[in-house]
Amino acid sequence: MKLFFGNIHGNSAELTEEESKHFSKVLRGKMGDEIHVTDGNGILAKGIVDQINSKSVALELIEIQKNFEQRPYKLHVAIAPTKNMDRMEFFLEKATEIGIDEITFLQSFHSERKNINLNRCEKILQSAVKQSLKAYLPKMNDLVKFPEFIKMNPTKNQFIAHCDANFDRKDIKEILQPQSDYLILIGPEGDFSKDEIELAYQNNFTGISLGNQRLRTETAALNAVFGLNWVN
Amino acid sequence: MKLFFGNIHGNSAELTEEESKHFSKVLRGKMGDEIHVTDGNGILAKGIVDQINSKSVALELIEIQKNFEQRPYKLHVAIAPTKNMDRMEFFLEKATEIGIDEITFLQSFHSERKNINLNRCEKILQSAVKQSLKAYLPKMNDLVKFPEFIKMNPTKNQFIAHCDANFDRKDIKEILQPQSDYLILIGPEGDFSKDEIELAYQNNFTGISLGNQRLRTETAALNAVFGLNWVN
Repeated sequence: MKLFFGNIHGNSAELTEEESKHFSKVLRGKMGDEIHVTDGNGILAKGIVDQINSKSVALELIEIQKNFEQRPYKLHVAIAPTKNMDRMEFFLEKATEIGIDEITFLQSFHSERKNINLNRCEKILQSAVKQSLKAYLPKMNDLVKFPEFIKMNPTKNQFIAHCDANFDRKDIKEILQPQSDYLILIGPEGDFSKDEIELAYQNNFTGISLGNQRLRTETAALNAVFGLNWVN
Repeated sequence: MKLFFGNIHGNSAELTEEESKHFSKVLRGKMGDEIHVTDGNGILAKGIVDQINSKSVALELIEIQKNFEQRPYKLHVAIAPTKNMDRMEFFLEKATEIGIDEITFLQSFHSERKNINLNRCEKILQSAVKQSLKAYLPKMNDLVKFPEFIKMNPTKNQFIAHCDANFDRKDIKEILQPQSDYLILIGPEGDFSKDEIELAYQNNFTGISLGNQRLRTETAALNAVFGLNWVN
């Protein structure tokens, strides 16, 4: 089963320009081929190709599923990117496969990385959506400074995962409310700074520990992603 | 905190030859340095370096912890290695960080990969143990043919994760017994063959599904690793 991104209107769909080229040039797709298309926003549809131009491929849809495999919770992870981007890219792929709704890159005091190739990250998300047959493409936000982010995100369940034993922290497993919305902040290799943790606590974030282990940044983030998927 | 592998006898320890060279040549360690050492079998000790030769570094131990952060369950994952070894290596690292006891590489009917660089894999395990401050080094077994493996592993909780809806499968979350021993088989990109699944069922393996998603091999394995850690 081949999945493509496209725009869906009623009973017809048009693949995006990039996907259209991929379909006709790389895969040598033909009129009459049966393929699947998603809008990345919950719709998964099956259609028959009824028009092929150089930059556009159109379909007549024969089956439309809305809210395809929608999860009963929402997860937004804000993460200070690792120095080694391979680790971040692996996180993006795995999180998309298992389930994540939004990813924000955080510029934290101890962050070593000050820039992100969003384009490349977006491609990884898209590719993971297609490979794992999802109908939701996670939203991705560019690097934002920690203090700015802290003040702009009002959610009910806001957590900051950190390792500083001077602050009160709860075990995430104990304070989980299934089927809820979560925002979880994951710090850089050197952890969040004391000031950052204080600022988060002042802004309605609860400190959490993701377990006893000393986890790498991307492992801590994956622990939250896999764990919430497991209990929901 | 720097952690090294070594042999521990009573109140003294000797780093392995490789770790000794690393300590003296790469890190330029000195007599009197305070470092940590593990035997990879549950002991985490703190010691003072009291002897440095070209191939051996010896310590007097000042603090010894046995069964350091021992998990309340045992997990053995037998996995058909992916074609792309990066994916396997990432699995090995993450599984070691989160918790795994034994890894076997399975040669399955649909496996594309017929060989494994065990040496390289072993280094990844060791490095993950050191980085995440563990005292248990997972045991790793070379590629074994599926039918041979099926017949040699008697455990109470034996599972085969597969996607073939023609066979009865249980949701792993529903049949988990916390604080137990698990053996979980994870198939190759093309899944286990019908014959393999039948053979496993005949040999006391229970078929499981790791969720609705279409997961890559290493993601399925990680789902089991993170999930069991989360519920135990």
